Order: sequence, then C-alpha cells, then structure tokens
Amino acid sequence: MKEYRFRAKDLKAYIVRFFEHFGLAEENAAIVADVLVTADLRGVHSHGIGRLHRYYGNRLRAGLIDPKAALHLIKETSATLCFDAGNGMGQLAGYRAMQACIDKARDVGVALATVRNSNHFGIAGYYAMMALEHDMIGISLTNSQPLIAPTYGRTRILGTNPIAVAVPAGKDDSYVLDMATSVVPMGKIAFYEEKGEVIPFGWGMDRTGSLTRDPHAVQDGGCLLPLGGTDEMRGYKGYGLALLVDILSGILSGAAYGRNIGSPGSVEGAPVNIGHFFMAIRVNAFRPIEQFKADMDLLIQQLKTAPKTVGHDRIFVHGEKEFERMKAYRRDGIPIIAPVFHGLCQDGETAGVPFDVKPIALKNSEV
Amino acid sequence: MKEYRFRAKDLKAYIVRFFEHFGLAEENAAIVADVLVTADLRGVHSHGIGRLHRYYGNRLRAGLIDPKAALHLIKETSATLCFDAGNGMGQLAGYRAMQACIDKARDVGVALATVRNSNHFGIAGYYAMMALEHDMIGISLTNSQPLIAPTYGRTRILGTNPIAVAVPAGKDDSYVLDMATSVVPMGKIAFYEEKGEVIPFGWGMDRTGSLTRDPHAVQDGGCLLPLGGTDEMRGYKGYGLALLVDILSGILSGAAYGRNIGSPGSVEGAPVNIGHFFMAIRVNAFRPIEQFKADMDLLIQQLKTAPKTVGHDRIFVHGEKEFERMKAYRRDGIPIIAPVFHGLCQDGETAGVPFDVKPIALKNSEV
Repeated sequence: MKEYRFRAKDLKAYIVRFFEHFGLAEENAAIVADVLVTADLRGVHSHGIGRLHRYYGNRLRAGLIDPKAALHLIKETSATLCFDAGNGMGQLAGYRAMQACIDKARDVGVALATVRNSNHFGIAGYYAMMALEHDMIGISLTNSQPLIAPTYGRTRILGTNPIAVAVPAGKDDSYVLDMATSVVPMGKIAFYEEKGEVIPFGWGMDRTGSLTRDPHAVQDGGCLLPLGGTDEMRGYKGYGLALLVDILSGILSGAAYGRNIGSPGSVEGAPVNIGHFFMAIRVNAFRPIEQFKADMDLLIQQLKTAPKTVGHDRIFVHGEKEFERMKAYRRDGIPIIAPVFHGLCQDGETAGVPFDVKPIALKNSEV
Repeated sequence: MKEYRFRAKDLKAYIVRFFEHFGLAEENAAIVADVLVTADLRGVHSHGIGRLHRYYGNRLRAGLIDPKAALHLIKETSATLCFDAGNGMGQLAGYRAMQACIDKARDVGVALATVRNSNHFGIAGYYAMMALEHDMIGISLTNSQPLIAPTYGRTRILGTNPIAVAVPAGKDDSYVLDMATSVVPMGKIAFYEEKGEVIPFGWGMDRTGSLTRDPHAVQDGGCLLPLGGTDEMRGYKGYGLALLVDILSGILSGAAYGRNIGSPGSVEGAPVNIGHFFMAIRVNAFRPIEQFKADMDLLIQQLKTAPKTVGHDRIFVHGEKEFERMKAYRRDGIPIIAPVFHGLCQDGETAGVPFDVKPIALKNSEV
C-alpha cells in the first residue's frame, strides 16, 4: 500500500494546532500531540494520528469531551490519589495522574492513582513509560468499550482493557509490555477483512457464539475472545485479566465499567466515563538501582541468548521492536498509509484545520 | 480413581505435627498447615498436602530449608517493605510479608512488599485473599523454577510464575484470580500422560522446539508454552506476563530469577532463593467500600446474566468454583486420591511422622 512519510515534529505541530482549534490550551494540546505521535513512532498506528478525528475531533465538536476540563483531586493519602477528569481528554488525565504518582513514589516508594470520568487516552504504554526516566517501574491500565465475551458467554461485556508496564534496564532497552487482554484488538480483525483473508480460529466468535474464521462476522455483532482464546487454551485467564483491569480502572475509580462504557468512536450519547489506573514503584526503595538494572540486563541476556526454534534467529523482549521502530521512524519519518493520509486531508477541511503537513523525501522507503 | 475423604482440621493437625517434627515452632507450623490445607479445600491439590514431602519435608531433612529462619526487614518506607526470608519456609514469608503490607495499607492506602531468599510458598491466592477481610485488594506473585520457553525460544527460562489477585465483593463471592502464566502447569501435562491421552496442540513443545501433543515429550526436556500459546494466538503476551512476575518477584526483591532458580522438588544443590511480591490496596482510600462492593456485585451480575454459548448454562467469575468446592469439602471432607494417600503413609513412616489420620465416613461420595 502507498504510504507517505512525515517528520514527528511536523505531525506534532499540526496536532497542537488541531486541538487548539477545538479549545485546548496550547500546553495541553502539546501533551495530547506527544501521546498520539509517540504511538505512531512506536508503530501503534491504531492509536496515533489516524484516530485524530474519530476518537477526539468529532467528539470535541459534538460537545462530548470538554476541552477545558481540569483534573480534580477527590481524595488523597500519602501514597494514593483519586482523580476526576471532568470528562476532559484522556491523555491529559493520564499524563497528570501519572506525574502525580511519580511525585508521590519519590517520597514513599510506591503510589497509585485512579481516574474517573475520562475519555480514550491513547496508548497505555505512554504513561507507564513516563516512570522510566525516574528509575521507577510504571503501570498503566484503562477500561474501554465492551468487545470481549467472558468465557461461556457470547455477548460483549468487557473491553480489550490493556495492561502496560515499563521497567528500566541498564545497557539494554527497557522492558515495555503494552498488551490488550483480548487475543487481538478489533482493529486487527478489520485489517483481515480489508485484506480479504480469514482470521485464525480462536480470535473471535460470531453473534450466535460460534467460533468463526470470518472477520466480518466478528465485527457484525460478534465478540473478541480473551487472551488464551478457547476454554481448552485457558481463555478464562485472559477473561480474568480483562475483568481485573475493569475492576481497577472502572470500579476502584468510580467510573463506568463492563457493558456500560460507551464507544469512543460515537458522536451520540453521553460521555463515556472511562476509568484509568496508574502506579509508580521507585526501584531503590527495594534495591540499589544499579544492581536492579544489572540484573535486568542479565535476565534479558538469558532470554536473548537462549536457543531458538526453527525459522527464528531472535528472541525479543517486550518493547524492543517498538524501540527499534522509533529509531527508524525518527530517522526516516513516520509512515502514514494513503487512506489515513486522505482521511486526514478530508476531515481536516471539515474540521476547519486543513492538514497542510508536507511529507518528507524518503531515503529508505522500505523501512 | 479411589479416593478417601478427610476433615480439614484433621489434616491440619497432622501437618502441624509434621512440621514441628522438622523443627518449626508450633505457631509457624500452623500457618504452613493452613496454607496447604486451604489449597486442598479449594481443589488445588497440586499445591496441597500431596506436596508435603516432595517440596517441604524432603528439603527440610536435607538441610535445604531452614526451619528456624526468621523474616528480616532489609529496607522500609511508609509504603514499601523489602524482606529477606533467610531461606525459611515460603508460607511463613508470604503470610508475614502480606500481613505487613496490610498493616501499612491501613495507614497509607497501598503497600508493596518484596521477599528474597525464600522457598515455594504454595498457592499464591492464599496471600492475596488475606486482604479480603480488611476490605482491601490483595495481590501476590512469585517466581518459580524455569519451565516456560519465551516466544521463539525452545528452552526453559521462565517459571509458570503465578498472578493472584483477590478483590472483595458484596453479596457475591469475592473475585479471586489465581493463574499460572503458562497455558497449563506441568502437573496437568503429567496428568495427561498418566491417563494415556494426548495434550491439546499449543500447550507444550518437545526438546527440539516443535509443538507436540505428546505429554511425555514436554516433560522430557521440552517446555511449556506461555498463556496464549503460539505466536499466532499471541503467546508473547503470556511470555510478557511470566517475565513481569519474574521481574517483580525475583529482580526487584534481589532473589534468583530466570534460569537460575532451582527446583523445589530437588534434594540436592543450593537453596532455591525464590522471590515473592505482595501488594495490598485499601479500597476506601479511593471510594467508600459499600459503593465499591455494590459495583462489584453489579459487574458480576452483568457477567452472570449474559447470554451463554451453546452447551453452557453458567458464566463463572474467578474464584467462584473454588468457593463452592470449599463449601462442599468442608461439609463432605477433602478428597485425597489413593496414590497420594499411600504416598503420605509411606513417606510419613520414613520421615518419622506416620500419617495416622483417619478418613471420615462419606455421606456424599460423588461430590
């Protein structure tokens, strides 16, 4: 597929203007822009600029997200924070709540923050990774619109509720897990339909509750399966993890949960009232950071130097592929496929913020 | 298979005598006994009295576990604790570290504890569930002997490193997730071999790294697959979770990790230096506990009343089956299969603590 390459800073500048147009303060627009472009830099295009209109612009225009909302602290102890985002942008809530966690963990070694009354916050990994430069472990969870069926169920009750954890290492890249608790996200199912291919058995079910290989049947009233997939493959564990994320993000925070969460792509209905959960752990509350990082490197080396299966010459640590992509995209530009580019142009006109960013000349178009 | 039924309190009394014989103080022996019998009461017989000799008695006798060890506090903040178990019984370390977490969370809302230099601690869920009566959320993790291959690897690097989380509910039973991060534990593979059956594709690989349906090939130098299973089914997520548990339990605590962890069933070599991680979250640091529990009940109701797949008339919440089993086993006795019973008799003689517990008359042998 034809793709254009853009400089990260050019996309960021456009996104800042875009959100300023919709009433965000410049400082806040810059935070949201950084979260979105970081997703594209890491190769998670499903949570990058491609969602600018559908998840954010359209909803701001419809009055379903408050561009001026401030994060309110509802309750606090020396190690915990309970926030209400006032139906503002999820990225702002996530950024500020995680920052507050990090500040508290500096004092007492660990801190938790919940956020209620928020919106889609982009990649969960962004907030977890904020802990890294402070030599802390970061955790970030969020609930989301229902798409997963519980084991033995056939309707959408739980979101693909991601778990993101970032852990600093020494010479090696940090460990960054950022995973949906379904086998795959719905976007992956749509991608198979676009390609005209069937999906592997165990990714989804149709509206009658039968496992299906037809990507359309999953999207058309069917469900995603939780991580693990079928009962035989212990899908109830993924179901348990999706439920756990909903409990910590939705119930502990006082946000919506389960079937009650609205779609972030809808321009009708009420605010979605999404909930988030953040945690920061200061490593040297437990061990000297140098020892910790040295052991991280040794464990990573155990993994990377282990014998491989036939057809593979490399064992990856979580986040490693994304760090490599980031390096390549910083050098060669962020790839944006033609339909997304054209969407940005078209929707930019409608929104009153024309997408006037120029693609850069490519040195290395196959990256 | 022929099975005997025993009263929980009779088994407990025997286990207390057993550990006293090996030098544990009575108070400590009672804690270990409660952890082991609770596993049997919940139906997790792989972590109950059946492991009395192999994981504990034989190692105490070989001098590989210190029966008199005390838990030492190495480092502390108002919300964190770093312990060294002095190569004592894992159950004592787990019980006391979790208790200390709960005490701190009472003050500051959340607390974490790590433990290094410990041993196999039985079911992870026991320690997580200790939080429930305090209206707290409990989390318990431990690393363990290497059995899982990382994605694209074909050797055992990571343990089946369990994740246990307990969350209080209102009218409904608590949510208690207690899951290995492999698809299934090695004991399940052995169970298929004993039955003379093949295992489902995706549970394990043989020593060459090929997926296999032969349970013997997995046990004989093969590997377990992480939750998710194959790459297509996103086994790298289970691999990421197993790795995360090792980082939090092993590296953050300063214990052994990865390939360096010894087998708890061996009577040779050095202490295993297993690490644990515990967390307690006081719910009312975030929301009034009554509101939280009411929402837990509503989410559980959403799940339980949802339409079912063909052939199923019930959707379960994590821990529900175990709570029901506990009720039945308290009423009808704990079932112990004949080979385990005969092992207890034989090994009890050798150890100098004859297994003299009498089975009870059965009212309801088919439970």
